[in-house]
Amino acid sequence: MDFKISELQGFTHQIGHLVSQMDYARKTTLDAVKGLTTEELDFLPSEDFNSIGALLLHIAAIEKGFQIEIFDGRTPNQQEMAEWGDPYSLGEKGRQNIKGNSLDFYINKLEEVRQRTLQEFAKLNDKWLYENRLWDNNQSNNYFIWFHVFEDEINHRGQIRLIRKMLSVR
Amino acid sequence: MDFKISELQGFTHQIGHLVSQMDYARKTTLDAVKGLTTEELDFLPSEDFNSIGALLLHIAAIEKGFQIEIFDGRTPNQQEMAEWGDPYSLGEKGRQNIKGNSLDFYINKLEEVRQRTLQEFAKLNDKWLYENRLWDNNQSNNYFIWFHVFEDEINHRGQIRLIRKMLSVR
Repeated sequence: MDFKISELQGFTHQIGHLVSQMDYARKTTLDAVKGLTTEELDFLPSEDFNSIGALLLHIAAIEKGFQIEIFDGRTPNQQEMAEWGDPYSLGEKGRQNIKGNSLDFYINKLEEVRQRTLQEFAKLNDKWLYENRLWDNNQSNNYFIWFHVFEDEINHRGQIRLIRKMLSVR
Repeated sequence: MDFKISELQGFTHQIGHLVSQMDYARKTTLDAVKGLTTEELDFLPSEDFNSIGALLLHIAAIEKGFQIEIFDGRTPNQQEMAEWGDPYSLGEKGRQNIKGNSLDFYINKLEEVRQRTLQEFAKLNDKWLYENRLWDNNQSNNYFIWFHVFEDEINHRGQIRLIRKMLSVR
């Protein structure tokens, strides 16, 4: 694998840069969870924390949420809330409801969601990327939103690495 | 504050994009440690882990290391190794030697190092950013290296948030 931030075939100039950053972030997330069992994915370091499994589904949920907001221009419907509400918000409900899944379950969810992002990106262009958009009531642009998607993933990858370390000192 | 990824005055097109990502990462790091006391910065969740203080100095050390490698084109000298070796490598020596400092100490180190990066970036251009460079024996470019600097920071910011949460449940 080349580790370069650059243009990428199939995308406009700047979207290619964004995708190359998202690709690297995803590679490191998958590396961080390699070989984990269901029991390890469910492990809670303490009762206030999130499991690695919940963090993985959260990463997919954040991306799914921005797909609905930005690509579909709407709020999540009832079915989407039922599937993605808990991993989006984490906390108590996440701890109760996200468990018992294999690593493949989480990886498939991550890939399924990512697939759509890449399909949409392939149809969009750099002009769209710089369009203004509110983010949490702040002036922002589409570029920032999708930067935030992978920077939130990296943030949780850091936590996953730490929780994985805790697994070995249980 | 605007949350945009875009050009930035004082830098060439693409370096501006990089700096706007680095700026956001830094803002969130500083937010994550706001108000921490020396005792909290020294807190070790368990004997195998790093303190928040050590992680902050590590963030500065990684950037310092790439400055020396890329801007100066050399390896660290003895004096630099003495100051930055422990926070760069973390682990046992980091735990022994990085403690007793105030939050201001860490923030000043982060800012001092960042200042030089921005000064160098202001003199460089996008052609330089895309120049090939080996990274850990992989094909890479300068853009990736500096992307890695802020993505490593975000990774540790995630860990800092988790360790800060542990402080409240001690």
